Amino acid sequence: MRRWNGWGDESIEFALHADALAFLAQRIGAGRPVTDAGLAQARAQIGASRLPEHALIDTSPEVRLRNALGQSLPDWLRLRYGVIGRAPDGVAYPQSAQDVRELLAYATQHGVALIPQGGGTSVAGHLTAPSGMPSVAVNMTRMRQLLYLDTESQLATFGAGVFGPDLEAQLRARGYTLGHFPQSFEYSTLGGWIVTRSSGQQSLKYGRIEQMFRGGSMETPSGTLHLPTFPASAAGPDLREMVLGSEGRMGILTEATVRVTPAPEYEAFHAVFFPNWHAAETAVRQVVQAGLSLSMLRLSNPLETTTMLALAGHKKMIALLEGYLSLRGCKGGKCMLMIGVSGRKSLARAALREALVLTLPHGGVHVGRTMGEKWKQNRFRNVYLRNTAWQHGYAIDTVETAVDWPRVEIMMRAVEAAGAAALGQYGEQVHAYTHLSHLYAQGASVYTTFVYRLAGDYEADLARWKSLKKAASMAIVDNGGTISHQHGVGSDHAPYLAAEKGWLGMSTLRAVFAHVDPQQIMNPGKLAP
Amino acid sequence: MRRWNGWGDESIEFALHADALAFLAQRIGAGRPVTDAGLAQARAQIGASRLPEHALIDTSPEVRLRNALGQSLPDWLRLRYGVIGRAPDGVAYPQSAQDVRELLAYATQHGVALIPQGGGTSVAGHLTAPSGMPSVAVNMTRMRQLLYLDTESQLATFGAGVFGPDLEAQLRARGYTLGHFPQSFEYSTLGGWIVTRSSGQQSLKYGRIEQMFRGGSMETPSGTLHLPTFPASAAGPDLREMVLGSEGRMGILTEATVRVTPAPEYEAFHAVFFPNWHAAETAVRQVVQAGLSLSMLRLSNPLETTTMLALAGHKKMIALLEGYLSLRGCKGGKCMLMIGVSGRKSLARAALREALVLTLPHGGVHVGRTMGEKWKQNRFRNVYLRNTAWQHGYAIDTVETAVDWPRVEIMMRAVEAAGAAALGQYGEQVHAYTHLSHLYAQGASVYTTFVYRLAGDYEADLARWKSLKKAASMAIVDNGGTISHQHGVGSDHAPYLAAEKGWLGMSTLRAVFAHVDPQQIMNPGKLAP
Repeated sequence: MRRWNGWGDESIEFALHADALAFLAQRIGAGRPVTDAGLAQARAQIGASRLPEHALIDTSPEVRLRNALGQSLPDWLRLRYGVIGRAPDGVAYPQSAQDVRELLAYATQHGVALIPQGGGTSVAGHLTAPSGMPSVAVNMTRMRQLLYLDTESQLATFGAGVFGPDLEAQLRARGYTLGHFPQSFEYSTLGGWIVTRSSGQQSLKYGRIEQMFRGGSMETPSGTLHLPTFPASAAGPDLREMVLGSEGRMGILTEATVRVTPAPEYEAFHAVFFPNWHAAETAVRQVVQAGLSLSMLRLSNPLETTTMLALAGHKKMIALLEGYLSLRGCKGGKCMLMIGVSGRKSLARAALREALVLTLPHGGVHVGRTMGEKWKQNRFRNVYLRNTAWQHGYAIDTVETAVDWPRVEIMMRAVEAAGAAALGQYGEQVHAYTHLSHLYAQGASVYTTFVYRLAGDYEADLARWKSLKKAASMAIVDNGGTISHQHGVGSDHAPYLAAEKGWLGMSTLRAVFAHVDPQQIMNPGKLAP
Repeated sequence: MRRWNGWGDESIEFALHADALAFLAQRIGAGRPVTDAGLAQARAQIGASRLPEHALIDTSPEVRLRNALGQSLPDWLRLRYGVIGRAPDGVAYPQSAQDVRELLAYATQHGVALIPQGGGTSVAGHLTAPSGMPSVAVNMTRMRQLLYLDTESQLATFGAGVFGPDLEAQLRARGYTLGHFPQSFEYSTLGGWIVTRSSGQQSLKYGRIEQMFRGGSMETPSGTLHLPTFPASAAGPDLREMVLGSEGRMGILTEATVRVTPAPEYEAFHAVFFPNWHAAETAVRQVVQAGLSLSMLRLSNPLETTTMLALAGHKKMIALLEGYLSLRGCKGGKCMLMIGVSGRKSLARAALREALVLTLPHGGVHVGRTMGEKWKQNRFRNVYLRNTAWQHGYAIDTVETAVDWPRVEIMMRAVEAAGAAALGQYGEQVHAYTHLSHLYAQGASVYTTFVYRLAGDYEADLARWKSLKKAASMAIVDNGGTISHQHGVGSDHAPYLAAEKGWLGMSTLRAVFAHVDPQQIMNPGKLAP
């Protein structure tokens, strides 16, 4: 059963052994566990629904609670402390485009807001019910079929509410893969990936969801937007690029056609260590600019490297590894790089060899596949750490951006420092570490994790988070980064969007939304309120 | 000196030898040359300018004539027969964004339309002056500097009016290339490529202009739209994708930042022949879906192959080649494939080897580099054939689309047949042949050339062209293709755009244009009139 107040399945725990806890306590002090609110207590806060009845809409309190919030830290604080706030007045589970059109007609008639959602994994406040009007959460997860597979064009059409594992299973049965593996993979959906411009861990090979999304169908208050598939087109602005990142403001994506590829014959993940950040960043930039057929490059900074080794368990093995690395010049400031390759075995291995050769002048030490395979095995498990950390009295939040190469290191330092300063106001320390998860010839995503102690009550913890989020977001904006590389805008990033879109860009987006949704019933308050 | 009534430089001729002319005459009858109108005769048709004076605007008749029309066949008919029709009332050559803003203020104040242009190479009627209001052609070619080169991020910022050769020369001096080589390369500009979504011959390696365009600055009637550069972003819909393909309807692009790469160490073009279309198409699909690092795949159908060999000259060598190919199974229905590779020599040669191996099961016969190098040498010369054909009494027009793989052959046959039927109404034959110039895992562009005889007067030739264009465009729409893969919409493709965008898509585009250009002064009548 899925957790109602945290990440993932109730049966899965990410254990933190005593050494890891000691490591954290030494960095930022011992955590102070808080007592979580119970489900009944939370459910009791769901008020009476204001909706006129409709056969497609469930107004029972628990269903509304379970579709009220996402996975952002402020959403977690509401769930854990039992301060639920606004919830949708009902939840609909459409099974067809016709159902969605009925919901749109209902919403238009009664002045009800619709909040589309897939797996509810948003970390940017996409799901918050609006104030001032009743709302329905439209849960798309019953539209999950592989509707059509064109093997000649390598295109697959799915119901937009299909979860990652279900999508991959349906494709793998036919010998294909989409290759989109965000960390939320197990609980996020195709439609959600598209409307928030998601990027997966192996985007270096498979591309971002923007490159995969080839066409589809969106139901809007003004009618259906059909997006036909073409290999390429010069026929005016690309409407897909308005749907991508539209975050429910234009309508509800019901079907999506995506580019698929034959499942790879071979896949491997290798680890390489570098003596320091400068060497590592220079090496990965040269590797990615060489245009080799790799599927992943993921570079951890020194503190993330230390943290990953501390949390890994296998104390003896890690000590041996660190001894070996030390002999090869990778000591205190060492950085870990994960390199992934996928595809035909001969080509994949050749690309890996080329990449390893390019790391050598920068002191790269290849330690083989063990750590890489461990990483792959845990790729969707690490996110459970957040549950465990909470149990021990720690909050974990992350921020991410992307920036051109000359500003990557500046950005990394600025975001980490902003987090430290924000928590410092409360006399607290922050354990902040960073990796570059998506590398481009032009630059990289910069993904920073903050671990800090809980204060112990809702208001105080919300204040800490707000300070942290604001400081980190301002650091991103001030250093020329985008407010999101892979998670979207939602509510939490909306105040910073104008910095990159400009006032004319913002007003143009609003004009598009107002055109297709003149009554402003589609996910109001998000993206460009 | 650039030709005022045809393609390219006056000093360059594409000679058609007697055998080639005999080949054409045998296919569609002997051409009947027409007498071209003179420059003075054309210039005399330019009426008095209706513009209030402005220091940036030249209203002299010859300058207006030279900026009045593009390179579409109906534009040619106007120039060759001396039936100029509407021309802009003046031409401006801005040298800065400030100049462009002044022109926008002037146009807004006086109700004057602005028609942005680069090199004036449009083949879709982008440059036609609107009826009902005075207009100024805004010629951007004086904004042509490399403004900034960021070698770390591999980004170059240019004035948007830079011509292809000038852009490449400025980059090559620093060791870089953009790698965008449309056939119009010598006379088209960066800004033109962007706002019409151009694609170059080596797009398989370098990408379409959409992938190269990373940011820039557009002046609109509502202010400046700044597009910052990010390696990637999930922050809402991508405004660049509204500028791409906007065809002057939103404003005037003044600066563009594009992705560049180190100039390739090695480049080669090889020819491979196949016994028939089915084998050839299957082979190229498998090659492109293998994801090899090639820079070009260009497949000619049997009649294009025959035509290229007939026009090549070197009769003896071609006979030897055909004898050899015949022995290897490539006879009457043979198809020629050009394969390009660029980059590091070892990687390029490895990719070529892999590609050649994939062609073998389909009867591919590799004939080496000679024909490929010849193709490369003439890559920007073939377009001069149109001038020569005209001198011999023939019109040449092309149409192009892109479609998913299952419909590629159907599309090719439908477009060729549509052209034959359209000219058949006039008792004329058409020499129609096709190539796939841009290949994708998903499908291919389908590029058909029509050669047919001139009727000898403006009205009759315009009627022939209209019949041909309509029939070919309907064939494209009916078979699920985009109305343009690489040339844009302009006036000539506008009637067919709604077939792919849908009414909601069309009205959304119009809402965007109306938002940034409420007085509708920007290139009215184009794209989505």
